[in-house]
Amino acid sequence: MTHHIGLLLFPGVQQLDMTGPYDVFAHMPDTKVHLVWKTREPVGSSAGMILTPDATYADCPALDVLCVPGGSGVGDLMEDDETLAFIRKQGALARYLTSVCTGSLVLGAAGLLRGKRATTHWAYHSLLAELGAIPVHERVVRDGNLFTGGGITAGIDFALTLAAELVGEHEAQAIQLQMEYAPAPPFDAGDPKRAPDAVVSDVQERLVKSLAARNAITARVVDRLKLDA
Amino acid sequence: MTHHIGLLLFPGVQQLDMTGPYDVFAHMPDTKVHLVWKTREPVGSSAGMILTPDATYADCPALDVLCVPGGSGVGDLMEDDETLAFIRKQGALARYLTSVCTGSLVLGAAGLLRGKRATTHWAYHSLLAELGAIPVHERVVRDGNLFTGGGITAGIDFALTLAAELVGEHEAQAIQLQMEYAPAPPFDAGDPKRAPDAVVSDVQERLVKSLAARNAITARVVDRLKLDA
Repeated sequence: MTHHIGLLLFPGVQQLDMTGPYDVFAHMPDTKVHLVWKTREPVGSSAGMILTPDATYADCPALDVLCVPGGSGVGDLMEDDETLAFIRKQGALARYLTSVCTGSLVLGAAGLLRGKRATTHWAYHSLLAELGAIPVHERVVRDGNLFTGGGITAGIDFALTLAAELVGEHEAQAIQLQMEYAPAPPFDAGDPKRAPDAVVSDVQERLVKSLAARNAITARVVDRLKLDA
Repeated sequence: MTHHIGLLLFPGVQQLDMTGPYDVFAHMPDTKVHLVWKTREPVGSSAGMILTPDATYADCPALDVLCVPGGSGVGDLMEDDETLAFIRKQGALARYLTSVCTGSLVLGAAGLLRGKRATTHWAYHSLLAELGAIPVHERVVRDGNLFTGGGITAGIDFALTLAAELVGEHEAQAIQLQMEYAPAPPFDAGDPKRAPDAVVSDVQERLVKSLAARNAITARVVDRLKLDA
């Protein structure tokens, strides 16, 4: 029994949203990780790293886990019918429907977060409720078979949590040990509740445009979801 | 003044060793990250992810930071004259010479760890002393302008530590906040001193072959370094 895990790999993916969980899943026994996009042509990440899909929407096998990472390309995906159709089709069959960072906004745009507890990158939490979710400020949030992770690095914690579900705690711990995941950040600045105020306001300012753009897209998506409903 | 940071991208790279630091550095202002290999042809990571270099040994600019990640391809690099020459040349000029995980073994094979405090993935620590280094069991180890990180995920802590050196603590904290790096692993199993005994012995057993192969390579490299000295 092979676990088929599909990570969406799209132009403007935040690569660490994807590569953190990839590493956890790639360490799992009896597991095949698929990097799925419309074509197998290489795509550029948010920061410009070239990544190459190895499966397409058309030929991707039925997935046990579908995972949507976030990134600057999320806005486009939220209004991309082909992607939303793929997520709805695979999401309906998958054992686990999952996301990291702003990837949850794409699940929301597919109409899959209605009434569900979910999380996203801390700076974009306000959009979750608009998409019908119950926003939860935790690093990894589970609601039934829906697992959502917080921003970027939360993908590693999310993937280890899911690995324990799929292959048991002993194996998840062995993966954690192989990855030497005993984190020791040099600062206590990873959470807006604990980072220095000047750091929080600087980062919020840098994200103003991105948040405004996502807000506008979310408003359009919400209108469409109402028409569909 | 642009910071030029070069990450070695080779066949069999442990992709998260590289993609963790990449994300930190890509968030830095006035910074250009180069993924350097012999050619620009795509290479496969340890687990099979296809990654694409964007600079070559021949055309890579003078680097402020050279960083060597680890992975299954490290053994080959330790005896690859072209790679060792590139590392010696750039390492002599760079402001910071750095590694993540077993990447430090390549720095050792280039003769650059003699008498230096350094770390590597916990399972390969015994090889550091053979290469002339002073092994230190810490997550990030600094000796002058040499920064070495421990296994795989230690690359994120290493990169944030180095970012604080390069662009200051405020900016490093802003990067940490953007990456939502407030880690919360589901288990306390990332360090062999704290993981359950059965997990540690399982992982050690899985790494026996790899450790033996690296031991044999290290013995040959040590002989060569003696001849060079």
